[in-house]
Amino acid sequence: MLASVTLGEIAARLGGELIGEVSTRIDAVGPLDSATPSTIAFLANPLYEKQLAGSHAGCVIVAPAFRDAALARGAAIVTPDPYLYFARLTQWWAARTRPAPAPGVHASAVVDPAARVAADASIGAFVVVEAGASIGAGVVVGAHGFVGRDCSLGAGTRLAPRVTLMFETTLGERCFVQSGAVLGGDGFGFAPTAGRWEKIEQLGRVRIGDDVEIGANSCIDRGAAGDTLIGDGVKIDNLVQIGHNVRIGAHTAIAGCVGIAGSATIGAHCMIGGGVGINGHVSIADRVVITGATQVTRSIAKAGVYSGLFPFDDNASWEKNAATLRNLHALRERVRALEKKQS
Amino acid sequence: MLASVTLGEIAARLGGELIGEVSTRIDAVGPLDSATPSTIAFLANPLYEKQLAGSHAGCVIVAPAFRDAALARGAAIVTPDPYLYFARLTQWWAARTRPAPAPGVHASAVVDPAARVAADASIGAFVVVEAGASIGAGVVVGAHGFVGRDCSLGAGTRLAPRVTLMFETTLGERCFVQSGAVLGGDGFGFAPTAGRWEKIEQLGRVRIGDDVEIGANSCIDRGAAGDTLIGDGVKIDNLVQIGHNVRIGAHTAIAGCVGIAGSATIGAHCMIGGGVGINGHVSIADRVVITGATQVTRSIAKAGVYSGLFPFDDNASWEKNAATLRNLHALRERVRALEKKQS
Amino acid sequence: MLASVTLGEIAARLGGELIGEVSTRIDAVGPLDSATPSTIAFLANPLYEKQLAGSHAGCVIVAPAFRDAALARGAAIVTPDPYLYFARLTQWWAARTRPAPAPGVHASAVVDPAARVAADASIGAFVVVEAGASIGAGVVVGAHGFVGRDCSLGAGTRLAPRVTLMFETTLGERCFVQSGAVLGGDGFGFAPTAGRWEKIEQLGRVRIGDDVEIGANSCIDRGAAGDTLIGDGVKIDNLVQIGHNVRIGAHTAIAGCVGIAGSATIGAHCMIGGGVGINGHVSIADRVVITGATQVTRSIAKAGVYSGLFPFDDNASWEKNAATLRNLHALRERVRALEKKQS
Repeated sequence: MLASVTLGEIAARLGGELIGEVSTRIDAVGPLDSATPSTIAFLANPLYEKQLAGSHAGCVIVAPAFRDAALARGAAIVTPDPYLYFARLTQWWAARTRPAPAPGVHASAVVDPAARVAADASIGAFVVVEAGASIGAGVVVGAHGFVGRDCSLGAGTRLAPRVTLMFETTLGERCFVQSGAVLGGDGFGFAPTAGRWEKIEQLGRVRIGDDVEIGANSCIDRGAAGDTLIGDGVKIDNLVQIGHNVRIGAHTAIAGCVGIAGSATIGAHCMIGGGVGINGHVSIADRVVITGATQVTRSIAKAGVYSGLFPFDDNASWEKNAATLRNLHALRERVRALEKKQS
Repeated sequence: MLASVTLGEIAARLGGELIGEVSTRIDAVGPLDSATPSTIAFLANPLYEKQLAGSHAGCVIVAPAFRDAALARGAAIVTPDPYLYFARLTQWWAARTRPAPAPGVHASAVVDPAARVAADASIGAFVVVEAGASIGAGVVVGAHGFVGRDCSLGAGTRLAPRVTLMFETTLGERCFVQSGAVLGGDGFGFAPTAGRWEKIEQLGRVRIGDDVEIGANSCIDRGAAGDTLIGDGVKIDNLVQIGHNVRIGAHTAIAGCVGIAGSATIGAHCMIGGGVGINGHVSIADRVVITGATQVTRSIAKAGVYSGLFPFDDNASWEKNAATLRNLHALRERVRALEKKQS
Repeated sequence: MLASVTLGEIAARLGGELIGEVSTRIDAVGPLDSATPSTIAFLANPLYEKQLAGSHAGCVIVAPAFRDAALARGAAIVTPDPYLYFARLTQWWAARTRPAPAPGVHASAVVDPAARVAADASIGAFVVVEAGASIGAGVVVGAHGFVGRDCSLGAGTRLAPRVTLMFETTLGERCFVQSGAVLGGDGFGFAPTAGRWEKIEQLGRVRIGDDVEIGANSCIDRGAAGDTLIGDGVKIDNLVQIGHNVRIGAHTAIAGCVGIAGSATIGAHCMIGGGVGINGHVSIADRVVITGATQVTRSIAKAGVYSGLFPFDDNASWEKNAATLRNLHALRERVRALEKKQS
């Protein structure tokens, strides 16, 4: 598809103050450092400010503070929130340049007669849809998808190729699930008995709100008794594990490789950094930020930023500090003894 | 399917002392806090004791210690181990309410003529079974499953949709493998040579005992030379990585996001918490408990509980402590100097 | 296939000094401890030296330093680098004993007429190849593979069963991707706006060099604007997450469960241990070694070994040290006070 547009068309569509030739043609959205004269780039992260002056971009999207710096090198679109402008530009760009999936059910798909599939939904090759499933208007189920018994997908929801929805999983509208994700698998529940583990069948479901995104190869387990609940607008990155009966409030974002143990409750508008672990049964308030690799071992009742991460160092320094750390309690006792003697 | 049963039927089937109307109808197994009069709930974790008095459950399964508290609010089943009772109730419930997979090979499946498939096994849509594979009585291979050359699945073993068994992988009886798991992929083995990596083909296999459960998107690598061995009754959660030539003893449970590096040996009846990492070549005794997020960097010769986790805090406190930690060795030297002067 | 060979054939093929009967038949490559007289084993890791004397192996591959110890127990092949010798032996063994995938497109595969597939490529059952994809000579796409629009696979590259390549992903020659890997999924990019997250469509691609191996269920995200780049000879283990716009230099090896956040740049010939996390936007020099479970929170400008890991201990000791650690800053202040008083 023809991706090329003019700066004038971009500004007409997305707004902002365009300073430059409206007729300049743009054929790519790209990063500052490798941009060509037909690329539009943006500056939002101050980390990249130093790349601005030398960028060959045909146009740069900037905040008012960078107006002069941007113009010193060429055309600019000035807008209060360049990152948001960039987000909308990428959406428009993707819609213009990517082929839409063909509506209808692929000849190879196996769809149970007792499933309901909207006429304009797109069901890909080798998809399986089981009885009682409901697939809404404009839904896309990518190739190799599995939609189990009694699942429900709201209007406009998309599954990338090879997504598993185990039985009774429900997704709201406009969700996007990336390849390899597994929703509704069994939670990890076993009762100990005489040195063995007795399976607790997981009788609950996974229920997901609207506008949720779930990353590649992430897992969301069904509830044991009661459901696992993901609120509206939640964004979940790749390789994230969400245990049974977890509840996540609306618009919380969870970065990659996070593990959330069973029955944890996480508030709305939280941000959970990459590699974070959250213990089972803890409760986390709204608007909590947890920085990367922190292990949350108790509840957090108050909005704020929380951290816990062993600082890294060159190996020799680390070894010395770690050795001291192993005897930290003894060191405290020695300080106490010194204080006693001195007083 | 009709899920409703009476309390009398439950007690007749599973035992326990029923105190209440035998004719009360129950149509759901659920948590205490959201239970309705037609729900049966249980109390095992003391964390939830405070939910007992206010629960609207039609019946609560409790230990003798909670008999009076439970009766103060309605019907109860009293049993020495409510969690185990609950486990068996969920099993019965699932068997009653979930449709059994149809026996036989789905028309779309590709089964090599040189594979052996039991007559009552269920082979789902788009499954591939390669030559030499052996699929036992009552086995279920969910849709999109891949059963490679010379794999073997013992009687009653079930694979959820989309499970990969690479060639020569063997599973015992009554195992359950969740969606997305990969068993028998190559271990990570490369010999360095002149700044490059030379592939070590992984010539061993994965061999799994009876009654093993493996979580969604978990990976168990085949051995390099010799096999990767998972003992009877082992339970493995989601997104767990088990390297080549690892050996895991019977009835050990491994929570989500654990990584076990190659050639580690783990005893029987161990419990490995979520996010734990275990170094290659270490050996861990029977009945070792490792709490969440601990990194096991050396062997553990004795049963017990082991931990190692940087405590989290609000970000400001963490930053101060982390900064001091970076110079912990120097702090010890200063204490030593003080001691010397003082003596 | 007949796997049995003589020691003479091995030495003729792979070199080394064979000391023993050339006619001894070998039918397995295995570990020292469980070897039988028809097994060939090797000794490279000094950890296993103690297994040498008692090994029943028909032949042991050793370095010159172990020549006498090896001969004291039977036949040996002496070579300067036993691990490399073993690697080449496994490659030869695998080529001799494993059936090659049949060339051609399986009858069940769905290949778009606008895709280019080399005549000798092997396309497995239920594979989907979309328009514009290019599949080179000798390529193997395992069962259930998805090769999206405009993807490109260089000669000799192999995908295990069930690999997802999202649109525009390119792999060089002789790559190997294990089951469940997802390449080219969307990076995690959202612009905050009024308490919600606005999707940033990921317009870049994933571009992978030659001789790259990618482990089971690992994920490599496509770039936001600009591409995610994996250099030649890079080896990536299972369950690894690589964010958008990451760049990894040639011949770097990455162990299991690693998470690399977006826009990180990693040099060539690095070794990243299992469970490591790397922050977004950091830059890591060539030949950096990061030991397991370290969280890399800032750039590393110099080759060397880097670590950061809370040492584990029995739970009681850990609790005491962790409690002290929570007040480490206060302990430093107390030492400072003591020093002041004493001086």
